[in-house]
Amino acid sequence: MSLISALNWRYATKKMNGQPVAQEKVNQILEAARLAPTSSGLQPFKVIVVTNPALKQQILPHAYNQAQVVDCSHLLVFAAWDNYTEQRINDVFSNMNKERGLPDSGTEDYKNNLIKAYVNRPAEVNFEHAARQAYIGFGFAIAEAALLQVDATPMEGFDNAKIDELLNLSQHGLKSVTLLPLGYRDETGDWLLNLKKVRQPNSSFIIEHQ
Amino acid sequence: MSLISALNWRYATKKMNGQPVAQEKVNQILEAARLAPTSSGLQPFKVIVVTNPALKQQILPHAYNQAQVVDCSHLLVFAAWDNYTEQRINDVFSNMNKERGLPDSGTEDYKNNLIKAYVNRPAEVNFEHAARQAYIGFGFAIAEAALLQVDATPMEGFDNAKIDELLNLSQHGLKSVTLLPLGYRDETGDWLLNLKKVRQPNSSFIIEHQ
Repeated sequence: MSLISALNWRYATKKMNGQPVAQEKVNQILEAARLAPTSSGLQPFKVIVVTNPALKQQILPHAYNQAQVVDCSHLLVFAAWDNYTEQRINDVFSNMNKERGLPDSGTEDYKNNLIKAYVNRPAEVNFEHAARQAYIGFGFAIAEAALLQVDATPMEGFDNAKIDELLNLSQHGLKSVTLLPLGYRDETGDWLLNLKKVRQPNSSFIIEHQ
Repeated sequence: MSLISALNWRYATKKMNGQPVAQEKVNQILEAARLAPTSSGLQPFKVIVVTNPALKQQILPHAYNQAQVVDCSHLLVFAAWDNYTEQRINDVFSNMNKERGLPDSGTEDYKNNLIKAYVNRPAEVNFEHAARQAYIGFGFAIAEAALLQVDATPMEGFDNAKIDELLNLSQHGLKSVTLLPLGYRDETGDWLLNLKKVRQPNSSFIIEHQ
């Protein structure tokens, strides 16, 4: 299936049927997110995979009681670095150079410029930048799920501070950004399933400078 | 080709060879971006497609002279709404209901809550939220390009205000977010081509709550 067909097939599933997604498919969805490009390769986000039923129940009221949170088999939580620090940036470049078998000297200037530009900015500015990167991975996960015919519901509507607390994210230096429950659509019970997908037409979406 | 294979194939191309991307492929890349899900379906972003050589040259110095800006055949500029306004939100819902053949009354409460929540926030907060949505479309475009074996370089490093000015974005109520030059890699001249793709391992990228 082409990505375009898959994207036409997918929709923000409102009611899931409880059927679990095979771990192998979840792994592919996570792999797509892991492969996402990020600014300067910093990869300032992680994915938390919640399968624990009690924890999903605890999250539910803090996600406006959207039932997909508990009806999904895997609840993905995309969480971004709460700040850029010298240590974190050093670790990324040191690991990258090690993996590539290259000396650190080759990236020293670039890295130091990055540190100079980032570490004195307010934490909120850095988190916002990191969160944007997480959205690329979030998009890749949505795309891969659609290609595997796994349903997913992209969600921003939840109490971030509460989710951070329930998942101990501050301990990892992370803050939650989005949720992505994975599961299968309830073919008979989902009001959105048969409504037309609406997007702005090309004439409005695209501006050309030829 | 699977998305995972395509994502392993792609990289942030540093040197393009000038070969043009067929318009049909560009259309598919834009279609993937157009199909991206966005918060409440507002789709608060557009894509500007720059093929005009003189305009690409004007953009070049404001994008740190990254040569892909002129060596690409199509320079995509992802630009988000500079603010959420009552008019814009009304237009989206009115169009959506018309396309679906449904009365506006069904979405009235939801829409009014959205307007209440958004229109009194500072424009910068709304732009930031809209920009995050643009990143999902940006990700979809990167993914579709990779599937089509078209090279692309995701770029954040440019002078946004200058690009906004050159493209008259304020006139459209938009602000630039990212650039995505499309083209083909220079197999012999790109220093990054043969370096290993490095990502954090699953053990660090994924946190499980079972």
